[in-house]
Amino acid sequence: MNQADRWLLPDGIEELLPPEANKLETTRRTLLDTFHRWGYELVVPPQLEFLESLLTGVGKDLNLQTFKVTDQLTGRMMGLSADITPQVARIDAHSWPKEGINRLCYCGQVLHTRAESLISSRAPMQIGAELFGEAGSQADIETLSLLIESLQSVGIKNIHIDLGHVGIYQALVAKADFDDALNAQLFEHLNTKSVTEYRTMIDERVQDGALKQAFLDLLELNGGLDVLERAQSLNAVADVQASLDNLKEICEAIQARYSNVSLFLDLAELRGFDYHTGIVFAAYTPGFGQALALGGRYDDTGAVFGRARSATGFSGDLKQWNRLIEQQIETTEETIFAPLGASWTVVTELRASGKTVICGLSDADTPAANGCTSQLVEKDGQWIIETV
Amino acid sequence: MNQADRWLLPDGIEELLPPEANKLETTRRTLLDTFHRWGYELVVPPQLEFLESLLTGVGKDLNLQTFKVTDQLTGRMMGLSADITPQVARIDAHSWPKEGINRLCYCGQVLHTRAESLISSRAPMQIGAELFGEAGSQADIETLSLLIESLQSVGIKNIHIDLGHVGIYQALVAKADFDDALNAQLFEHLNTKSVTEYRTMIDERVQDGALKQAFLDLLELNGGLDVLERAQSLNAVADVQASLDNLKEICEAIQARYSNVSLFLDLAELRGFDYHTGIVFAAYTPGFGQALALGGRYDDTGAVFGRARSATGFSGDLKQWNRLIEQQIETTEETIFAPLGASWTVVTELRASGKTVICGLSDADTPAANGCTSQLVEKDGQWIIETV
Repeated sequence: MNQADRWLLPDGIEELLPPEANKLETTRRTLLDTFHRWGYELVVPPQLEFLESLLTGVGKDLNLQTFKVTDQLTGRMMGLSADITPQVARIDAHSWPKEGINRLCYCGQVLHTRAESLISSRAPMQIGAELFGEAGSQADIETLSLLIESLQSVGIKNIHIDLGHVGIYQALVAKADFDDALNAQLFEHLNTKSVTEYRTMIDERVQDGALKQAFLDLLELNGGLDVLERAQSLNAVADVQASLDNLKEICEAIQARYSNVSLFLDLAELRGFDYHTGIVFAAYTPGFGQALALGGRYDDTGAVFGRARSATGFSGDLKQWNRLIEQQIETTEETIFAPLGASWTVVTELRASGKTVICGLSDADTPAANGCTSQLVEKDGQWIIETV
Repeated sequence: MNQADRWLLPDGIEELLPPEANKLETTRRTLLDTFHRWGYELVVPPQLEFLESLLTGVGKDLNLQTFKVTDQLTGRMMGLSADITPQVARIDAHSWPKEGINRLCYCGQVLHTRAESLISSRAPMQIGAELFGEAGSQADIETLSLLIESLQSVGIKNIHIDLGHVGIYQALVAKADFDDALNAQLFEHLNTKSVTEYRTMIDERVQDGALKQAFLDLLELNGGLDVLERAQSLNAVADVQASLDNLKEICEAIQARYSNVSLFLDLAELRGFDYHTGIVFAAYTPGFGQALALGGRYDDTGAVFGRARSATGFSGDLKQWNRLIEQQIETTEETIFAPLGASWTVVTELRASGKTVICGLSDADTPAANGCTSQLVEKDGQWIIETV
């Protein structure tokens, strides 16, 4: 391996250099402060856990996404967290249980064995908020509102929300009475938008004509809020009214609060990992061909840890959001150069007052070499700041 | 595996729950802001790198500490960063090179296959600052000063600094003319304070009487600043004057700046990983039996990436520092409850003004259930805040 190769990073792994890293830190603080003002408490789940803790109940996709290492202390397998959401559900179930509603948020590094798409990172900085203990639509409305305001708070103003409801698909599947393998396969087809395979499977496996039609109708049930009316027909084969009411209430509340956010309904949308149970949503912004955040309801994920709870929330990749944020960090900030020998008291006082002071390290050191716009100069026994 | 086991975390791996996580975030911000005011620019090195990038030139200890995984895209081995310092040296050498002095800082999760000591974490949150491009003592004085002020800024006031200088030991070794294997073994003995093994090896392997005595004297050269006088005798066998002058200059400057910080010299101290080249130091606080931060000079680490540079810096475990910080986050902050149906405009305005507002999610929801001390109440068509 030669020198040039040594600094090559693996595909989908990035480092953040000063201007970008500084912007990321500012974005991170803005978002965590927003979460805080909504009553969400910060948690830091471990990045490394035993595989059973990390992957129980969350499905095969996450398993494939998870890097595995051996615990040298016990010989057991550990996994590197690929998704913080189930970890936070464990915290709600066990480490930080509350009688009533629990609002938690987080921002941490996750790692993926493979990128989710061509433009995805394998090392997203997952940031999100989760709300536990409330089954009603108000909880979904709150997390979706928080997502929208989070994006707005960091300057992402043009937001589109795609909404679906896993409950509708699940109601049809319950009527079809597939076995687990078929269930998984059908979910996979729909989740990956393999429409032809989905149609073929429905055609071959569903005998009841009305149910077959309902499964096929699902593919067409997307568009504006009129979708909710058109979807009423599904009630003929399975009771989807509660799901439709849930979606309607959410859409109406979001439209009332955020008239500049556009909503798009897609009842065939299942959204990634298969732990979701109710509404699922994704946030988009024009010119970025990938969801900025995914979210939805995932009740009972904590059951394997002894506590089944209502749960809804969202998360996204902070690094991805950061790239979309155009506003530059204010670079007008004054940076003061203190030549070698300048009064340490004065330097300390300036820093305590919030100023940035760079100390010269040799007699040859200059303000210009340190990117400073002003410097400390001694005049009549006083150290004063002078523009360079 | 039963339910109880599922939430057991691996030894040395911890999760941070709300009060602690919030304190950590505050501590993190205070420290990064301090670094910023000293002119240190933030970088975020990747957590996952090809092994050759991560481990070239940093020695066996770090290799053993590093978790390895396979890159499914290339089949090559990758490592999870166990120490950010060499990564930042790579950034200085290649990704963010500067002509003159480069000041960089960072705060990120690292992972260790084994804990460094019984009370160490296997998942430290490494925070630190590194200064590149200045060989003189002023650079060491700056980083040591920054370490002291960083600890002070988060409320750790009672600070002891242990100081050593790898250059003195290296000067003796150069005279002894050991082969690489013996060199490594002797370093290991001294580094792990295996005094008996060290004495035996010196006794058996060093022929020259004066040199033998110098090696043995090294074990006694610890204590106050008088050590620097006593160490003059080493000059009889090897030129250690430059190292002693370097140490003296640093000690005097630190004493002048921080009279409440106590200094302890130990010329047999080598400090952990073997990439150090000049002064090495560790910060301690009473009642905590482990170094809070380690640092020192490690010139030329970047050479394997094509750029040999002077380098000095320090780092510690933010989670460990956080545990030592007694001051609690202000809990007097008012949290306002907004009942279901409260004016969304009023809620939004309150949050925009920096207040924390928790929205009721059902008619049964109460301020008490959400830990709120006040609530929004409608009076004569106006929403006002009332104490509960």
